Amino acid sequence: MKKISVFLLILSFLINASSALADEGMWTFDNLPLKQWKERYNFEPPQEWIDHIRLASIRLEGGSGSFVSPDGLLITNHHVASGQLAKLSTKERDLVKNGFYAPTRTDELKTPDMEANVLISFENVTERVQTAVKTGATDKDANAQRRAAITAIEKESTEKTGLKSEVISLYSGGEYWLYRFKKYTDIRLVFAPEEQIAAFGGDYDNFTFPRHDLDITFLRAYENGQPAKTPHFLKWSETGAVDGEFVIASGNPGSTARLLTLSQLRYQRDTGNPLQKKIWTLRRDTLENYAKRGDEQRRQASGGIRSFNNSLKRLAGQQEGLLNPRMFAKKEAEEKALKDELAKKPELQKLYAPAWEQIEKSYAELPKMANRLAFSNLAPSRLATIAQQLVRYSEEIKKPNNERFPEFSDARLESFKTNLLSPAPIYTELEEDSLTVWLEEAVKTLGRTDPFIRAALGDAEASEVVKRAVAETKLKDVAARKMLLDGGAEAIAKSTDPMIALAKRVEPVIRELRAWNEEKITSVEASAGEKIAKARFAAYGRTIPPDANFNLRVAYGKVKGYDEDTTLVPFRTTYYGLYDRALSFAETPPYDLPVRWREGRTKLDLATPLNFVYTADTIGGMSGSPLINRSGEFVGINFDSNLQKLSNRYWYIEEEEGSRAVAVHSAGILEALRKLYDAETLARELTGK
Amino acid sequence: MKKISVFLLILSFLINASSALADEGMWTFDNLPLKQWKERYNFEPPQEWIDHIRLASIRLEGGSGSFVSPDGLLITNHHVASGQLAKLSTKERDLVKNGFYAPTRTDELKTPDMEANVLISFENVTERVQTAVKTGATDKDANAQRRAAITAIEKESTEKTGLKSEVISLYSGGEYWLYRFKKYTDIRLVFAPEEQIAAFGGDYDNFTFPRHDLDITFLRAYENGQPAKTPHFLKWSETGAVDGEFVIASGNPGSTARLLTLSQLRYQRDTGNPLQKKIWTLRRDTLENYAKRGDEQRRQASGGIRSFNNSLKRLAGQQEGLLNPRMFAKKEAEEKALKDELAKKPELQKLYAPAWEQIEKSYAELPKMANRLAFSNLAPSRLATIAQQLVRYSEEIKKPNNERFPEFSDARLESFKTNLLSPAPIYTELEEDSLTVWLEEAVKTLGRTDPFIRAALGDAEASEVVKRAVAETKLKDVAARKMLLDGGAEAIAKSTDPMIALAKRVEPVIRELRAWNEEKITSVEASAGEKIAKARFAAYGRTIPPDANFNLRVAYGKVKGYDEDTTLVPFRTTYYGLYDRALSFAETPPYDLPVRWREGRTKLDLATPLNFVYTADTIGGMSGSPLINRSGEFVGINFDSNLQKLSNRYWYIEEEEGSRAVAVHSAGILEALRKLYDAETLARELTGK
Repeated sequence: MKKISVFLLILSFLINASSALADEGMWTFDNLPLKQWKERYNFEPPQEWIDHIRLASIRLEGGSGSFVSPDGLLITNHHVASGQLAKLSTKERDLVKNGFYAPTRTDELKTPDMEANVLISFENVTERVQTAVKTGATDKDANAQRRAAITAIEKESTEKTGLKSEVISLYSGGEYWLYRFKKYTDIRLVFAPEEQIAAFGGDYDNFTFPRHDLDITFLRAYENGQPAKTPHFLKWSETGAVDGEFVIASGNPGSTARLLTLSQLRYQRDTGNPLQKKIWTLRRDTLENYAKRGDEQRRQASGGIRSFNNSLKRLAGQQEGLLNPRMFAKKEAEEKALKDELAKKPELQKLYAPAWEQIEKSYAELPKMANRLAFSNLAPSRLATIAQQLVRYSEEIKKPNNERFPEFSDARLESFKTNLLSPAPIYTELEEDSLTVWLEEAVKTLGRTDPFIRAALGDAEASEVVKRAVAETKLKDVAARKMLLDGGAEAIAKSTDPMIALAKRVEPVIRELRAWNEEKITSVEASAGEKIAKARFAAYGRTIPPDANFNLRVAYGKVKGYDEDTTLVPFRTTYYGLYDRALSFAETPPYDLPVRWREGRTKLDLATPLNFVYTADTIGGMSGSPLINRSGEFVGINFDSNLQKLSNRYWYIEEEEGSRAVAVHSAGILEALRKLYDAETLARELTGK
Repeated sequence: MKKISVFLLILSFLINASSALADEGMWTFDNLPLKQWKERYNFEPPQEWIDHIRLASIRLEGGSGSFVSPDGLLITNHHVASGQLAKLSTKERDLVKNGFYAPTRTDELKTPDMEANVLISFENVTERVQTAVKTGATDKDANAQRRAAITAIEKESTEKTGLKSEVISLYSGGEYWLYRFKKYTDIRLVFAPEEQIAAFGGDYDNFTFPRHDLDITFLRAYENGQPAKTPHFLKWSETGAVDGEFVIASGNPGSTARLLTLSQLRYQRDTGNPLQKKIWTLRRDTLENYAKRGDEQRRQASGGIRSFNNSLKRLAGQQEGLLNPRMFAKKEAEEKALKDELAKKPELQKLYAPAWEQIEKSYAELPKMANRLAFSNLAPSRLATIAQQLVRYSEEIKKPNNERFPEFSDARLESFKTNLLSPAPIYTELEEDSLTVWLEEAVKTLGRTDPFIRAALGDAEASEVVKRAVAETKLKDVAARKMLLDGGAEAIAKSTDPMIALAKRVEPVIRELRAWNEEKITSVEASAGEKIAKARFAAYGRTIPPDANFNLRVAYGKVKGYDEDTTLVPFRTTYYGLYDRALSFAETPPYDLPVRWREGRTKLDLATPLNFVYTADTIGGMSGSPLINRSGEFVGINFDSNLQKLSNRYWYIEEEEGSRAVAVHSAGILEALRKLYDAETLARELTGK
């Protein structure tokens, strides 16, 4: 039985690899699946169509978006923008809970630190990066040589074009591409619904379908104090997606791990994922306990709770996939198939075959370091993170551009500073709580004699150290941060701010761990990854897209329901379904309705579609991606996927298994704007009427 | 791992057996779970409450019902009444498809052969039946002796009370009870909705929840040409069931197999169920092919198709349960626990312990006879069945009452004749088709030399024999049946009707198989079953209800949603949900809406509850059971259960596993009657207003 099934899996892998029978892949714009589109959907877009889609697509922090008017209006998910909504909120004005609408442009609210990037151009720089590595270099040296080449390319491009320029690695180092972005930093809030309708059903309904969420937020990009001119915007479809329709999703998938080796996957399965679960659970529980103190505390913590719950639910689905022997056997079959192909070309085998073992050897070191790598940081506190960034910046900025940590290279400094100096609110009670619990757990996990713990706490209790640091630090004040930033190493050295002091104490430990990780893991991954990528290109050509790394990709598929258990799941839901689900639970949370929605139900045409599902291959980070039809129209916005799809971090899941992405329908958005929010001005801007 | 889990299962079984922590059991009225009701629900109904419920409860062919007005008005499920609806339909007047409403009593349509029974009284006759068995009798003789005693009891009772009297066996022969019924044979149709709304979602949504079915039909019992006086009727609750409410379901569960021995269960798992699946699939497919010939053929076959699909889906769930090693281990643990209890009482052990082995030995004979027992009949044809009944009756009626097959005992003759002489329509094309395919499959399964096949066909083809029999038989004519019935053995002997001839030819084979089955299986089951029942009583007392056998029982529980995958399933649905599901599938069948419903949606208050779920322990046959609250009010009507519950034929499934029964909500029924069907007269009769 097993032999046959593994054989079939290999076969199906090879078939997929060569002709892509399924709606598989998150494709880069330089290598779109045009052949599949033509063969499967009879769709042959001209180059202008493709360029237009790319230039209407936006990368945001943690998600995606798209322009939907010529005047800089953009749409993303509520859950992508909710961090900014929280930063704009106060105890008295809770935009997350109550939503927001700016009927005129003067009412629009500037977000504190939102950045939007549009991919303007891209260029293959693989040869320049790979040939920068000198013959005979160690993996560590090779990494530094590549890094230097990349920094130089980025700096040149920035200076030449004025565009934000990033060299990204694809196929684990098999390719390097220079991406140039137009960056918008003045982003203003136009419209957000109440969180309760954006995330109706809460964590229970997250990653499920049928679904009833108005998970949207409208923002506007400004330039020089005026709405940005955005001629490449998506025309809004008032009809929206229909059953069976071909759609593409253009957005920024955060991370996939489909091309990893078995040893890398086993590490994730046996160590990485369980540890991640522990950490996210700890942080979620910390926030939950904090939220119990009162309404204002709940307001402050709710975004984080929702985000960790989302991450945990997704992680559970991913881990379930890895623990499924049938699925893991598929990965084993894939790796074996590639090695067998390689074996047919002895000269290449000699060059590339050792790569798998190199990674395996490198990963063998990782489990025993995992706890130290995971806990030796101050990430749960925003104030501590600011302190660490200031300390680290002050050391790095002294070095030549190409020797710095990448995040401090000249090309990235502007974004770094914008983020550091954000006026977003900081809640000291929450800061103290989060950092204390974190360090207490770090003590439990690492022990009192661990270097990070020694440096952070000495013999003191976490609570004492943190209490004082949070109480006395001046870093809540943006001006104080600016002074330390401008003052450089000298100012940092002189600073008596206790949070800066804490960051300075732990910095050497963190640098040591980072160096270890770079030498033992990432540089090996880069060198070996390049070899495996070359082996894969030699075997299959460039028929498989690279793993996702939060850069612009295109996924595609069709609007389509699916089977579940013995019955059918429809391709969409309607507003009828929203009210049914609320009333079927007698409106008990998380199925309660905002007042506007409870009282306004007779105003809506309830037959209007609300959410829908489709077969495109998406993953986290594509939240907010526009769904685009053949005519280049906006027919919906991606915001989630169903449970069946969760393990697609590790492999593509066929549509027959019920794996689907979930979107808000463009007609449903318009209906709500017009009938419930009296947002006629916004609706007219969308429809051009 | 396994040892621990089996141990826990034994423990949980013993706990359940002694204190019934769960809403378990379909209880007889002589042994209601009053203790559990008091402890768990603080509910202590007076005896009048209990009697009232019993006297309002109705047994119908294949299901249950209840009186809901003092004038004989009763409600059952559409799928229980649909056979009668089909019999009342013609090509021109399709009551199944289009529904029916009689605004006045003169419009009410008499059903051709519906019978309704109300349990008037019951009496324990165990001693009289069990002591009728002479010491040292073989199992076969013991069976005959019991049978004789039962027939005598039934006849005495019928003569004395004029009531329909049946002795029923409980606990596989552990107890015998005389049940007396008031029988109504003039049942008229008052209201039925369109089948498409009664079974919205068709076979896909069958056994699922959330659900949106108006699975109801109203009928009226008449006596002497007048509406029956039914003082014991359930008051209609206009509010209907609410979340968390205690409810009881009073109805006639068809069959459970929870007290069977492991060898009986293994037979079902390994032989019985697979064979049943083959037969039902064959019959379903025959009807499906027939239905493809045209609309009228589809009309004739659709009830059968729906019924076989329902049976097959349920059987699949049951078999999945039996094939689940964890569930089967629970049965092994139960049997072991009972045997261990028995071992503590050596005098009883000596008497009862051999019973398991006796059944095992008996069942060892069954697999090799299974195909003969299953295929040696003419059941798929109504005409052939009538012929067989006439032939069999003519032989049996010559015998003394207590020696006849039970179905021909004096006490049962009236119901037998009513059924035989029913004027319900018979479709010859369908008859020919069904019987031909059946006999062709019988030939394939049993072979040409099988005694049944030889007798039925000789060397002829099934198609020839059947074609002639169906074409030339006079049995479609009720008067012809009546003549043969009255003419007795002589008339049958002289008859040249080819269908009677076919029945006469196969009758000896069928009698031989029946005798074999009685001697080898049922008489052993009865004797051994009695021993096991006594062992169980000795170990646990009468704390477990007997297996269901289509007699009146009470199940209880609370209205309650459940968890499924990572989300929540609500306790109810609303009319919003109906329209959502229809429109989410763009009204493609089976999610299309009858015109009245499509056009009438603005007339309904869509927030009205439509269906709901609850924890009561129910099974097929309880379809149509009223759901009754503490006040004795009708709050809904049971019509289905969800997938999680399907294997409850073999064991009770805890509410934590998501097992739920599904009902139509009393408020939803009223809303539809008033707003869509203009059935104000009926609504007023229900509400008493």
